[in-house]
Amino acid sequence: MLRIVIFEVMSANSFGKLFCLTSFGESHGPFIGGVIDGCPPDFPIDLEKIKKEMQRRRPGQSEITTQRKEEDEVEFISGIFEGRSTGMPIAFLIKNADHKSADYAHIKEQYRPSHADFTWQMKYANRDYRGGGRSSARETAVRVVAGAIAKQILDTKKISIQAFTRAIGKLEMEEVNEHYSLEQVEKNIVRCPDQELAAKMEALIKDTRAKGDTIGGVVECHIQNVPVGLGDPVYDRLEATLAKAMLSINASKGFEIGSGFEGTKMLGSEHNDAFVKTGSKISTSSNNSGGVQGGISNGMPIEFKVAFKPVSTVMNDQVSIDKEGNEIIVKGKGRHDPCVIPRAVPIVEAMAAIVILDHILINNSLHLKTSI
Amino acid sequence: MLRIVIFEVMSANSFGKLFCLTSFGESHGPFIGGVIDGCPPDFPIDLEKIKKEMQRRRPGQSEITTQRKEEDEVEFISGIFEGRSTGMPIAFLIKNADHKSADYAHIKEQYRPSHADFTWQMKYANRDYRGGGRSSARETAVRVVAGAIAKQILDTKKISIQAFTRAIGKLEMEEVNEHYSLEQVEKNIVRCPDQELAAKMEALIKDTRAKGDTIGGVVECHIQNVPVGLGDPVYDRLEATLAKAMLSINASKGFEIGSGFEGTKMLGSEHNDAFVKTGSKISTSSNNSGGVQGGISNGMPIEFKVAFKPVSTVMNDQVSIDKEGNEIIVKGKGRHDPCVIPRAVPIVEAMAAIVILDHILINNSLHLKTSI
Amino acid sequence: MLRIVIFEVMSANSFGKLFCLTSFGESHGPFIGGVIDGCPPDFPIDLEKIKKEMQRRRPGQSEITTQRKEEDEVEFISGIFEGRSTGMPIAFLIKNADHKSADYAHIKEQYRPSHADFTWQMKYANRDYRGGGRSSARETAVRVVAGAIAKQILDTKKISIQAFTRAIGKLEMEEVNEHYSLEQVEKNIVRCPDQELAAKMEALIKDTRAKGDTIGGVVECHIQNVPVGLGDPVYDRLEATLAKAMLSINASKGFEIGSGFEGTKMLGSEHNDAFVKTGSKISTSSNNSGGVQGGISNGMPIEFKVAFKPVSTVMNDQVSIDKEGNEIIVKGKGRHDPCVIPRAVPIVEAMAAIVILDHILINNSLHLKTSI
Amino acid sequence: MLRIVIFEVMSANSFGKLFCLTSFGESHGPFIGGVIDGCPPDFPIDLEKIKKEMQRRRPGQSEITTQRKEEDEVEFISGIFEGRSTGMPIAFLIKNADHKSADYAHIKEQYRPSHADFTWQMKYANRDYRGGGRSSARETAVRVVAGAIAKQILDTKKISIQAFTRAIGKLEMEEVNEHYSLEQVEKNIVRCPDQELAAKMEALIKDTRAKGDTIGGVVECHIQNVPVGLGDPVYDRLEATLAKAMLSINASKGFEIGSGFEGTKMLGSEHNDAFVKTGSKISTSSNNSGGVQGGISNGMPIEFKVAFKPVSTVMNDQVSIDKEGNEIIVKGKGRHDPCVIPRAVPIVEAMAAIVILDHILINNSLHLKTSI
Repeated sequence: MLRIVIFEVMSANSFGKLFCLTSFGESHGPFIGGVIDGCPPDFPIDLEKIKKEMQRRRPGQSEITTQRKEEDEVEFISGIFEGRSTGMPIAFLIKNADHKSADYAHIKEQYRPSHADFTWQMKYANRDYRGGGRSSARETAVRVVAGAIAKQILDTKKISIQAFTRAIGKLEMEEVNEHYSLEQVEKNIVRCPDQELAAKMEALIKDTRAKGDTIGGVVECHIQNVPVGLGDPVYDRLEATLAKAMLSINASKGFEIGSGFEGTKMLGSEHNDAFVKTGSKISTSSNNSGGVQGGISNGMPIEFKVAFKPVSTVMNDQVSIDKEGNEIIVKGKGRHDPCVIPRAVPIVEAMAAIVILDHILINNSLHLKTSI
Repeated sequence: MLRIVIFEVMSANSFGKLFCLTSFGESHGPFIGGVIDGCPPDFPIDLEKIKKEMQRRRPGQSEITTQRKEEDEVEFISGIFEGRSTGMPIAFLIKNADHKSADYAHIKEQYRPSHADFTWQMKYANRDYRGGGRSSARETAVRVVAGAIAKQILDTKKISIQAFTRAIGKLEMEEVNEHYSLEQVEKNIVRCPDQELAAKMEALIKDTRAKGDTIGGVVECHIQNVPVGLGDPVYDRLEATLAKAMLSINASKGFEIGSGFEGTKMLGSEHNDAFVKTGSKISTSSNNSGGVQGGISNGMPIEFKVAFKPVSTVMNDQVSIDKEGNEIIVKGKGRHDPCVIPRAVPIVEAMAAIVILDHILINNSLHLKTSI
Repeated sequence: MLRIVIFEVMSANSFGKLFCLTSFGESHGPFIGGVIDGCPPDFPIDLEKIKKEMQRRRPGQSEITTQRKEEDEVEFISGIFEGRSTGMPIAFLIKNADHKSADYAHIKEQYRPSHADFTWQMKYANRDYRGGGRSSARETAVRVVAGAIAKQILDTKKISIQAFTRAIGKLEMEEVNEHYSLEQVEKNIVRCPDQELAAKMEALIKDTRAKGDTIGGVVECHIQNVPVGLGDPVYDRLEATLAKAMLSINASKGFEIGSGFEGTKMLGSEHNDAFVKTGSKISTSSNNSGGVQGGISNGMPIEFKVAFKPVSTVMNDQVSIDKEGNEIIVKGKGRHDPCVIPRAVPIVEAMAAIVILDHILINNSLHLKTSI
Repeated sequence: MLRIVIFEVMSANSFGKLFCLTSFGESHGPFIGGVIDGCPPDFPIDLEKIKKEMQRRRPGQSEITTQRKEEDEVEFISGIFEGRSTGMPIAFLIKNADHKSADYAHIKEQYRPSHADFTWQMKYANRDYRGGGRSSARETAVRVVAGAIAKQILDTKKISIQAFTRAIGKLEMEEVNEHYSLEQVEKNIVRCPDQELAAKMEALIKDTRAKGDTIGGVVECHIQNVPVGLGDPVYDRLEATLAKAMLSINASKGFEIGSGFEGTKMLGSEHNDAFVKTGSKISTSSNNSGGVQGGISNGMPIEFKVAFKPVSTVMNDQVSIDKEGNEIIVKGKGRHDPCVIPRAVPIVEAMAAIVILDHILINNSLHLKTSI
């Protein structure tokens, strides 16, 4: 076959300006991994906490996720000395285990519907198709590591980030008027804090899988104790950076902050959040803004939602084409998630943590009075 | 008053990696303006086309926009020689006219609900409050200039970008199954291609203004003839860059691509877009993906929506606080848009044009076989 | 003529990571100017001090510089409110006056020896040749503005930057063992603190000009009171960033820090700088390192030199070729500097100030204990 | 001991805009390594060629280098599939072998003269002192890997990069008027193409080592067949990017291009390079410009020099201080290079290759006529 490179790409595997994660690795290579540059020096890194986050994302964690097994142990190879960060790049590896490349051999010549096979083949000409290669959501494990470190730093500032499953298919939690604890969210395998609804969601996911199908859903995320002042005008508004972070997660199709799309139906007089002062604290009586005004955090909880489409890999036959353009029947194989939402929860949190920490470091940079 | 700088910011007034716009200027300063770095050299710049785009964004363009008058003439001061770009920075100025700073003097000490007054004051300590200063949507005029140049370059590749008003408040166009021409969109001052609905929308906006109130809405945007291959994994997926671009526009609260939030309710077997080959052209029989798969354009039209909240400035009295924390009554003054949607249409297009062109230039960078 | 674009360029008109200057404008356009993004907010900007720096760079300032007249008044159009920075982009314009474009009309078709005519024409196809366009050293006026603001911020930290003329042609100051004050440097128009040598240098420059020729030289720069800790491993070492800054100045051909090229002839035992502690202060008994060790400032004065070649525009006839490749005789015209060194002194200081401030802001960014 | 973080750092372990190397790892950690993002896809990677470059940099390669043994085998873990690049990040590891950490235990409390101990300790508080940690020149192995890949791509364009030893201490090659082949340079272990002088240099290095001392030197580098048009005004001139690349190499203290510091003594009429046309080829009759004019390559060979100071680790006793500020005697231990120049030759080439390739990719980005 004649190799013709039609389109090519530039470095786009890094995220964050100052707290910067560079990610690498393919699904069926020896490792995936990352390099965190810009982590503050002399910060104690708690490996146990990183492990816990990894467990929340891990495949095979419950009966409603893929049954693929990945231990997802993280090996740190630089930037940590005597348990503390050194200010130098923190590189880490995660071993890829349990390869069943044979499950994917058929992908080589096929363009599966709504997968990345076609676009990546066209763009890069040379595609590591095994297990989806680099287009696999396996890459998100790298994000969870970086997010877990970011979370530890945010912890010292009492900033907490908690996401949860807001909807699975048409099953959606009604208006959410409170923040949930990790414990509340982790009470069930769906990660929906409404226990009753969670049971229905679980049943829906199982039923969907039984039919060889998949289903989408919505993750909601709340960030509490955010200081006033995060976010940078004009193009790096806090909601803009969050939106980019969220839409960079595999299978995400939408983002809304505060009142979001529903808010477009409101009148200004209804939508506006009135300022109130209680003691020395300034807050707003409602939070349609979702914690951000003029692109900058206002001290209220940051609240946003992320839409995830149903997983593209279904077990039913689908019509598609192969690399030669011939019509083919694509048959689902392998072990896949019937619904990504429960496992997306820690990924959303991780990306949010990186964004918030990055904005804090950016803020620090110009803090003349306290520096040097 | 003691000046205490609590939070500060880093350079965040640039957008685009290779086709890079740097924006500057405040609402009531002498000029706003921008610098475009990375415009391909020797490209003929059509100033008339730029003027037309500016007219579409201009305040005072119709009876449903603010009645502020700004001529918004663009003066180019560098980077263009004998009518063609030189490859050097294209700097331009837009004169601020028709200042009524007195209309804004009251803002100095007030924190208007859902405005940027509070957050910017806390973050920067020194805030140019006149007309909203730099937090004013006046800055978007700069984006329209850069977008108009990007559009001209995209034109040579037959890539067309057309946005339109999808909803005003609860008035929403039903399922949209076609693409609209500029002519169809510009047929009415609401910029909604459904003429009948547009009349209702116009009435709603007028009615809302009569009550001293404001209303939100949704802009939808279609990009046609996009080549396969735009968008960069993993963090710079095409939808991620678009999301950031859209959420960086004043008053935007949400973004969705393809099936978006609605798609989360679907099954994978319903949602998947089957590939079909017709002649030599590969396309998909549906477009729930919105033209992007695996973060990369697949040659189908790119379709996305942006949610805009109702404008915060209402003419009715609102309770809020001043800089000292005292409760006050904020009274709306000045001439404001009762609804930003019609004027947001060209802004959405401009940001989309910058994103698409930037991704094309990124693709070019590695095109080894045709370069040097 | 057929227009064929062979090579093109990407955005490269910005300098600095956090304190970021974007420059624009051509020699004979209406203005040159710049945008400073990342200036700390609420900092009082002293316009008088900026003016003084501009006077030091200004053409026509003395009898040994070009007799072109440029007032070089700086008009600020954004980012400063009530005399203080706002944290938003500081945009400024400098009017181009005294155009004698006719002096340059001949350049259009000629490739002058050692000028940018040939390379820019080849690269950009469309070249604003008037007065050298954007390749003119006029652009350095923009750097001096940004540097003058950076200097004011550094002043508050007692960091002082002083450059001086170390050599003109073969006339070179012997070993320099002290730091000079602005007053000492400005005592003569050559900006050489050795008064006796300065007189000889002045005579040499005049004599060279009388012969229609030009001459090169060396600028040395000392930065005092630099805190320990500026500079970032591995690729952004302090000396690496300084080297880039200096080699980006028109006509510069070399950079050396500390012992530089001479130091390569020394033994390690001679070259090493021994640490000594006096009271609570740690310093080194010699300074062959030039104030930087391991890429990071060690608290000693930073000392470096920059080589400038002789100006390419000579008044004597030179053989060259035109755009068609025909051999031609290039005749020098217009008013040019016989030697750039005296005017390069403030430019070297300006770039050094931007580098040092930028590294300070970078350091601040991770200063967890004092931030937020 | 109270931990006080005084200064901190931001991400600075990446080099290159489009062909971007991120480096990580410490001298005595399990691995050092790197991630190359932006490598063109579908390019065949010759691992044997990478190995050869690594051999040229390897410690213990000859009797005049350190006798430390490092196999320096490179393990690629992503971004290459079936022998060709995929366009995704190319991550690689190099195992650290032959650790004698005990040799370095004394460094923990000492500030060795002209080493990075003091500045890194002050800046980062937590320093991995073993073997110099990340400040060790071991990091340059990572650069050689990336450079070896860049070289392969440049090979396809006939661009060749060859450095050589120009001087060791006071032994310097006279005027160099030709380019040397890899074979000529590798003929002796000093890497000086003047065989006679090389023998003297070798003797000098051995003699210096015998005395427990070290010596500096100069590396010169020639790049041939560079197309016209590389380099980006104004701040990213080709010589500016090269200068930064070279000054980022451990122990380098100076950079000069073309005539460099010597050229400052010349008259403009002597220094100017006259254009001549021979057949269809435009060249210059001399090359004082060193292949760059107006920041852009002119098609002539690029020629530059880099100064390296003598290695700081000498075997003789030196007076210094410890962390408490007490005067101490530092005794040299371990196996060190008496002279870095021979091993610096491939490192200079590697950094040059990255710079040149990066500028080529930047040029490609705007090549409108040939793209998409």
